[in-house]
Amino acid sequence: MTTPPPPSRKRVEEHASDVAAILGPVTSTGTESVPIDDAAGRVTAVAVTSPVELPLFRNSQMDGFAVRSADLEDGETRLRVVGEIAARPIEPAELQAGTSVRIMTGAVVPPGADIVVPVEESTVETSPDGTETVVLGAPRSGGERRPGLFVRERGSDVHAGDELLPAGIRLASRHLAVLAAAGITTVEVRRRARIAIVTTGAELVEPGETPTLGQTFDSNGTALAAAVVAAGAEVVRRARVVDDRDALLALLDELHGDADLILTSGGISMGDHEVVRDVLGPLDGWIGSVAMQPGGPQALGAYRGVPIIAFPGNPVSTQLSFEVFVAPVLRRAAGLLQAARGPAELAVAVQSVPGKRQFLRGRRLDDGRVEPVAGPGSHLVAGLAASDVLLVIPEDVLALEAGDAVEAWTL
Amino acid sequence: MTTPPPPSRKRVEEHASDVAAILGPVTSTGTESVPIDDAAGRVTAVAVTSPVELPLFRNSQMDGFAVRSADLEDGETRLRVVGEIAARPIEPAELQAGTSVRIMTGAVVPPGADIVVPVEESTVETSPDGTETVVLGAPRSGGERRPGLFVRERGSDVHAGDELLPAGIRLASRHLAVLAAAGITTVEVRRRARIAIVTTGAELVEPGETPTLGQTFDSNGTALAAAVVAAGAEVVRRARVVDDRDALLALLDELHGDADLILTSGGISMGDHEVVRDVLGPLDGWIGSVAMQPGGPQALGAYRGVPIIAFPGNPVSTQLSFEVFVAPVLRRAAGLLQAARGPAELAVAVQSVPGKRQFLRGRRLDDGRVEPVAGPGSHLVAGLAASDVLLVIPEDVLALEAGDAVEAWTL
Repeated sequence: MTTPPPPSRKRVEEHASDVAAILGPVTSTGTESVPIDDAAGRVTAVAVTSPVELPLFRNSQMDGFAVRSADLEDGETRLRVVGEIAARPIEPAELQAGTSVRIMTGAVVPPGADIVVPVEESTVETSPDGTETVVLGAPRSGGERRPGLFVRERGSDVHAGDELLPAGIRLASRHLAVLAAAGITTVEVRRRARIAIVTTGAELVEPGETPTLGQTFDSNGTALAAAVVAAGAEVVRRARVVDDRDALLALLDELHGDADLILTSGGISMGDHEVVRDVLGPLDGWIGSVAMQPGGPQALGAYRGVPIIAFPGNPVSTQLSFEVFVAPVLRRAAGLLQAARGPAELAVAVQSVPGKRQFLRGRRLDDGRVEPVAGPGSHLVAGLAASDVLLVIPEDVLALEAGDAVEAWTL
Repeated sequence: MTTPPPPSRKRVEEHASDVAAILGPVTSTGTESVPIDDAAGRVTAVAVTSPVELPLFRNSQMDGFAVRSADLEDGETRLRVVGEIAARPIEPAELQAGTSVRIMTGAVVPPGADIVVPVEESTVETSPDGTETVVLGAPRSGGERRPGLFVRERGSDVHAGDELLPAGIRLASRHLAVLAAAGITTVEVRRRARIAIVTTGAELVEPGETPTLGQTFDSNGTALAAAVVAAGAEVVRRARVVDDRDALLALLDELHGDADLILTSGGISMGDHEVVRDVLGPLDGWIGSVAMQPGGPQALGAYRGVPIIAFPGNPVSTQLSFEVFVAPVLRRAAGLLQAARGPAELAVAVQSVPGKRQFLRGRRLDDGRVEPVAGPGSHLVAGLAASDVLLVIPEDVLALEAGDAVEAWTL
C-alpha cells in the first residue's frame, strides 16, 4: 500500500529544513548579561572563569582545635588552649608552638597551624586559674594525622582564572551557586529568541468575549505563546488581525525591531480571504502545501528582514506545526532537552491517508503501548489536550495493525 | 566491609520520612484561580468542564461548496451558486434545493446543507448574465459522499459539561489551548508552596560585596532559591541573618503568615554559635545527625505553626540536602517529573566512609558509565557545578570497583 506524495506537495523533511534555515539567525541573536538570581534556565553564552580563589581563605573543615602538626605526639597530646576562632571576619595571630585554638567550621585557620583535630577527638581540662588544656586522643577513624588534615586550603576548589562553567550550559541551581560562591552577580547568557505571535481570522474572538454565530474563540494565541515559552524563547507581542492585509502590514511594521521572528496562524489556505498569503505572496514568500496531516498548508517568508513562519489556522494544525517544525530548533538553541521520540507498540489498528505523513494524537497506556485519541480532525482541540503522545504514520503507510510498531513523540 | 551506622545517627530514610511529614501540609495549601496565559506549568486543582459545545457551531472542514446531499447525482452534479459564506459572524439563510453556496473552512454551514464538497472537486461555469453554476465531479479520494462529509457538527469535539481537563495535570500549551477554545479565561490550580529561605552565618557576605579575611560569599541563598523554583514552588522571601538568635526570631515572626515553609542553612552543628539550633532547641525541634555525607547535621522544627527544615551551612551539604529530602516532595506536588534515579556502571573505583550514605558528585561519560568529579568535601561548590549526576554509595559499602553498579541520580 505505497503511494508517493504528489510532486506538488513539499515533503515534511524539506519544509523542516527550510524552517531551520529561516530560524538560524533567530537562534543566535547575541548575548545579554543577567543577574544570577534571574538566570535559572538560561544558557551560558561564554565560559565563566573565577575572579577569586575558592575557598577564599584557608579554613577549617571541622569544629575542633587548630594545632601545629609538629606538636602532635604519637599517643596523647596536651596543648594549652589560647583562644577561639569563629567563622566570621578575623585576622588571627600566628599560632605559637605548644598551643592550640578552638576553631569552628569555616573559620580562618591561623598562620602556623597546619591541622585541625575534630572536637570529637578531644577533651578539655580547666585548671583552677581558668587555663584550659585540650587533650587530643587518637584519631577516631584510626587514620593518620597528616599535615593539612581537615584544613581547606585556599584555592583547593578553584583557582582564580579557572573555568567555573563552560559556554552552552543551561543554568541550574548548582551552577548559579558556584557563581555566587565566587562573588559573581551577573552572567552572560544567550539572548532568548524574541517571538511575536499573530493570529488571523475574522471569525476569531478572545476567550471571555461572547461569540455570535460564526465566531470561534481564538486558542492559537494562547497555545503558541505557551509553546514558545516552553521551548525556551520569549513572546514579545501577541496580536490578532482580522482578514485585512493593510492591518497585517501595519502590525508587521510595528513588530520590526522588536521581534526576531513572527509566527502567524491562519490566512494561508486556498480561500478568498487569506490575509497572510496576500501579504507574503508579493514578498516572494513560499506558500504551499506540505505532505502532512494535519498541517498541510504552510508558508514562509520575511518582512523587512524579519522571518515569518506561517501556520494554518486550525488549532490542532497550528499546534502540531509548531511542535514539528519550530520547537525542536528553539529547544536546541535554549539548551533544553528534546521531546522523546521513538518506536512504541500500537494497542489498536490505525488507518492513514495516502501521500501524507499523519500525526495522530495518542495516549500511552499503562503497559507502554499507544493508541489514538479522538479523531484526525484538525479542529479537535480537546482530543489534542487529552493526548500525551503523537503517533507518526509515514506517507506510504495506509494502515497499521495492533501490535505494529509506530513512531511515538512524547508531548 | 559492613559497618552499621552508630545508633545516634538517624538513617536517611527516617529523616526523609520526617521531612515528608512536615511537608505534607505545605504541599496541599489550597487552590487559586489564575489567567490561562499565566498558567503554564501549574497543576489543575479540579477537573475543568466545558461551558460550551465545541465546535460552537456547525462549520465547514474545507474550502468548497455547501450543498444538499439529496441534490447530488451519481455522476456529475450541476448546482446554481447562490452566494458565499466566509469564516466570520453570519446568520446564513437556509440553502434551497438545487442550489449551493461557496463556503470557507470554519464558516457556518447553512441550514439545509448537509455536506461540503471540496473546491478541488469542483469547477465553476459563469453564464453571460453572471449566474454561476458549480459542476461537482466525483470525489477525488474515490470514497462515498455521505451526508455530513466535511461538516463539523456542533459539539462533535466536546459537549457542554464534558470534562476538558482532569484534576492534577500540569498545564502545557495544548491544555491551555482547549481552555481558550472553550472561552475559559482562568483556571483553578493548586497554589504553589510559598517558601522562605534564610541563610545564617556571621561569615557570609553577599556576592558583589568585598569580603575581608574570614568572610565567604553566600551561595546558599542563590542555590536554594533556584532549586525551590525548579521544584515548582515559590520563593516568598530571601533573607540572611548573622548568628543572632533574636534577629532570627524577629525574622520568623515577619515570615509568619507569608510562608508555608522556612528553609534555613547553617547554624545547626556543634559549634558555639549555632543560631538555628539555639532557636529550634527551645521549640522542641529535632536537631541531630543523619547518617549521610555530605549533609550530616540536619534539623527540623516549627515556629508558630510554620514548619522549618534546617540544612547545614556548607554549600554542597545545603544543596544535596534539598535534593535528597525536599525536592522530591515538592516536585510530586507540582506535577513535575522526578529526577531519574537508577543503576549505572562505575568507570573507576571509589571509596566511601563507614556508616554513612555517601553522595558523591559525578559525571556521566559518553559511554554511559559514571565517575566521581572532584572530592567529597562539602565546600567544593565547583565540583558540584561540574557534575551532572550524584553517585549514591550505601552505608555499608566502603569501596566499589570499576565496573561495579552504583545508584546514579541525574541532577
